[in-house]
Amino acid sequence: MYTLYYAPGSANLVVHLALLEIGAPHVLKRLDLDKGEQRSPGYLAINPSGVVPTLLVDGVPHGEAAALAMLLTERHAGAALAPAPGSAGRADYLQWMLYLANTLQPLFRQWFYPGDHLPAAADNIKEAARIGIEKAWTRIDAHLAAHGPYMLGDTFSLVDLYALMLMRWSRNMPRPATTWPQLDALATRLKSRPSWKAVCEAEGLVEWA
Amino acid sequence: MYTLYYAPGSANLVVHLALLEIGAPHVLKRLDLDKGEQRSPGYLAINPSGVVPTLLVDGVPHGEAAALAMLLTERHAGAALAPAPGSAGRADYLQWMLYLANTLQPLFRQWFYPGDHLPAAADNIKEAARIGIEKAWTRIDAHLAAHGPYMLGDTFSLVDLYALMLMRWSRNMPRPATTWPQLDALATRLKSRPSWKAVCEAEGLVEWA
Repeated sequence: MYTLYYAPGSANLVVHLALLEIGAPHVLKRLDLDKGEQRSPGYLAINPSGVVPTLLVDGVPHGEAAALAMLLTERHAGAALAPAPGSAGRADYLQWMLYLANTLQPLFRQWFYPGDHLPAAADNIKEAARIGIEKAWTRIDAHLAAHGPYMLGDTFSLVDLYALMLMRWSRNMPRPATTWPQLDALATRLKSRPSWKAVCEAEGLVEWA
Repeated sequence: MYTLYYAPGSANLVVHLALLEIGAPHVLKRLDLDKGEQRSPGYLAINPSGVVPTLLVDGVPHGEAAALAMLLTERHAGAALAPAPGSAGRADYLQWMLYLANTLQPLFRQWFYPGDHLPAAADNIKEAARIGIEKAWTRIDAHLAAHGPYMLGDTFSLVDLYALMLMRWSRNMPRPATTWPQLDALATRLKSRPSWKAVCEAEGLVEWA
């Protein structure tokens, strides 16, 4: 049994989608970020950084969205959400997971919270993040054109769920991810899966649903 | 057999250290970044982004330093550089690998290449990166004080090698990582391992060696 602490549409989304794709029983605990519930003493006790998501695994709290989703694929290998360790596709899987984790996700953090480290530079940091995000979409779109339709080729995987969450985050940007044709096709394909409808209903997502 | 394309002290360092710790036979191919060898047609054919490292695994090129190092731990499970999939320590391992990958490593990219996306904002981006890096060191130092001496507690792992590479990158910053006491102790401990002496010799590292 898992317990997922979440805020609608936040980084928990990829973990939540993985739980749904796997069919793993789980309990949801919603945090109201506007009310600062992520900084309550109770939440800080299980997530000292005060961010979502936290996943309780056998009662023990863990963080980092991409890491949690990767952990779930390993604990439920039968769901085949990722190439197994030792298999031929494992290197590509790790490469794309880490690429999204160290390129797009931190740039989105800067897009959404540009004044985190140096408030006076927020406008510059936001604009640089926009440019970096668009470069990354261009790269991924070219990858899909050459090696798609999924991020790992013919096979749906966790990498697609991670990309889907990030694409959703771009929906109100000057140039949303879905203005790139291959990304748009990937989003459409993924949104037709039962897990997408289920996650939107469970988290109460209405925009880009 | 592996072939590692590297530039001295660059992101290849964690992959190189993993190869040495594992004792895996490998061939090194040095790239001179100042001469632009990473943008030669031959290199772009195996690494379209033109960055180091690239690792040939059974002749197939793959990228992303942290992903490559994680792959090596899985292919050589006997070396026990990471908790095995399914084991109790796996969640912490993934959490810290992803934390370093999506926090410190991208901030270092901005510290070293602040004008990548918006050259006019380079000074601001560099300063924000410095602040972010120092916050991350503070968090990691507190983690080590509470749960060290290694990143995963009593057991040396790939997470330590990744942290060591990032600590080295901070050596000429206003506040190097080793000014935090627990980080300094970790660096000293790791630099006493044969893999550190071997990697410095093989890559020709003299600073912070």
